[in-house]
Amino acid sequence: MDDFMRAAFKEARLGAEEGGVPIGAALVDGDSLVATGRNRRLQDTAPVMHAEINCLYNAGKTIQDFGGMTLYSTLMPCYMCAGAVLQFGITKVVTAESKTANEGFEMMVRHGVEVIDLDLDEAKSLLGEFIRTKPHQWHSHPPK
Amino acid sequence: MDDFMRAAFKEARLGAEEGGVPIGAALVDGDSLVATGRNRRLQDTAPVMHAEINCLYNAGKTIQDFGGMTLYSTLMPCYMCAGAVLQFGITKVVTAESKTANEGFEMMVRHGVEVIDLDLDEAKSLLGEFIRTKPHQWHSHPPK
Repeated sequence: MDDFMRAAFKEARLGAEEGGVPIGAALVDGDSLVATGRNRRLQDTAPVMHAEINCLYNAGKTIQDFGGMTLYSTLMPCYMCAGAVLQFGITKVVTAESKTANEGFEMMVRHGVEVIDLDLDEAKSLLGEFIRTKPHQWHSHPPK
Repeated sequence: MDDFMRAAFKEARLGAEEGGVPIGAALVDGDSLVATGRNRRLQDTAPVMHAEINCLYNAGKTIQDFGGMTLYSTLMPCYMCAGAVLQFGITKVVTAESKTANEGFEMMVRHGVEVIDLDLDEAKSLLGEFIRTKPHQWHSHPPK
């Protein structure tokens, strides 16, 4: 795990401490960390505030063009977040796991995004614990 | 144009008055307006704050499950917003136009979403005026 994924994990753990869904993300430009974010769906009462959207929201405070950048996430992006990757011209996505959810994978690959899944037990364990203890909060928004 | 699209247009015009990108959206459950929103990309310095995302963000304050609902937008949803439609199980999308942008159309149709484009001159005119006067602000985030 490199420093960027570590930054995403740090956000995921902050989310867990807040009682939120423990998923974190980081936006990287070359060798530079641009922004981080975490799922704030429960904290903000906002279903759209996934980790990747929150990360891009935070990134927007300092930079407006995410083209060619790399997005790290502790979970494979959903359809919405994968769509954001395409929309903003993000060219590479690194995920910590894709076993818990995998919706956005094909969408990104079909559009030429490089997707690397590190398949880390640490990610599956962190999110799995949340799903076991709060299953209704995890499953409240089934994708179509 | 029905009352729901009128609500979306009202948001688009509010955006124009604020100096923002004039695109509006409305979320509808059966015969009931759940929430409206507008593109706040420039107002909030937040590239992710498209009209549809803002509308779903606002909707989240009163309801958490958007499954089976209809999303109105004065412009065909982009990849990110189309992905949000899929992710949250929204089953129908009504747009005022799709000439200015059309990215999300195929993505939604492929997943079985009913998409109706009203092709209204009023929408093309409102957004066209923005693009003519502020081209660099419209084109700053080319989709991949």
